[in-house]
Amino acid sequence: MFSPLIEDLIRALRCLPGVGPKSAQRMAMYLLEKDRDAAGTLARTLEQAVEKVGRCSQCRTLTEQDVCALCNNSRRERQSMCVVETPADVLAIEQAGNYHGRYFVLHGHLSPIDGVGPDSLGIDLLEQHLAGGELRELIIATNPTVEGEATAQFIAERAAERGVAVSRIAHGVPIGGELEYIDGGTLAHAFNSRTAFSTGT
Amino acid sequence: MFSPLIEDLIRALRCLPGVGPKSAQRMAMYLLEKDRDAAGTLARTLEQAVEKVGRCSQCRTLTEQDVCALCNNSRRERQSMCVVETPADVLAIEQAGNYHGRYFVLHGHLSPIDGVGPDSLGIDLLEQHLAGGELRELIIATNPTVEGEATAQFIAERAAERGVAVSRIAHGVPIGGELEYIDGGTLAHAFNSRTAFSTGT
Ligand SMILES: [Zn+2]
Ligand SMILES: [Zn+2]
Repeated sequence: MFSPLIEDLIRALRCLPGVGPKSAQRMAMYLLEKDRDAAGTLARTLEQAVEKVGRCSQCRTLTEQDVCALCNNSRRERQSMCVVETPADVLAIEQAGNYHGRYFVLHGHLSPIDGVGPDSLGIDLLEQHLAGGELRELIIATNPTVEGEATAQFIAERAAERGVAVSRIAHGVPIGGELEYIDGGTLAHAFNSRTAFSTGT
Repeated sequence: MFSPLIEDLIRALRCLPGVGPKSAQRMAMYLLEKDRDAAGTLARTLEQAVEKVGRCSQCRTLTEQDVCALCNNSRRERQSMCVVETPADVLAIEQAGNYHGRYFVLHGHLSPIDGVGPDSLGIDLLEQHLAGGELRELIIATNPTVEGEATAQFIAERAAERGVAVSRIAHGVPIGGELEYIDGGTLAHAFNSRTAFSTGT
């Protein structure tokens, strides 16, 4: 119904997560009818990002720099490293604000069925960090899924071989969460991982 | 928190309608982590569209061609023309499927407060169509808002001056709509625009 180039644009916008045919059409109309400047800026920024954004040579997070700002920050504690699945996980932990060490981004988890092995997760680079002598603790914050747990297990073994202490972030009932709305798997885990109640006496 | 170029991308994505900070971040991560090919295609298509999409020289709808496919379609009836506010309105009417004439796209409505007068709506081009001698009926399908009605009134006067019959599409309770959920303005309009009930005898 629209001209070929507009149909191409609507199709291309559908690659965005959460964007169906109707929103893609609304977005295309908005960009072409209301805000060509913003559309041009988006096109150029996206092209630049696709071309220039790579991975930090130390922690593998997404960045256009060789070493990311966080790895370059001399105030971050160099003796602890937190392993996460995605760059968005780094953001979530930074927003929580109580961790001051470094990160290591796997960009996924072990998934033999999809051909994702240790190579794709940068385990060789992680081993270099483990062998470097600076690290005192590796904190594993992969997701509490079957694949995330298997990945955590694999990495914990590598750290143990190098004599680096390993920990896993706690999983359980979220703070402020009401028990009746928590799924069974989380509740079961919370019971299995219960800790002694300190009475302070 | 992200690198400058990624922050730029997140900001640029927020120009899209309905996209807040969280979705922009999710989109940026998706494009850079999961689908660089789609991201590159989107960047190039958007750049092309911004550069090449203009307006049809006959009906003013968005197109990269001089004359759009619809105006070029010899099977469309040339004696009727439907005036709409946006290219998306053309799509909506085409999807209904019972109109076979031509269109004229205003790209807005009269709005003196925003400096939108007859010039920005292409009224001079519309007058050429009215004077051309081919048109028998001008169907006004601007929105049933204060501005849409004022625009309809203005255009109806131009058509009357040229001796072209003018009609306005009907507004009222949507087919399948339940009265209790229809807003008061629509109901009031439906009462004022009531038509005689034909008993078929
Ligand atoms: Zn880094
Ligand atoms: Zn046209």
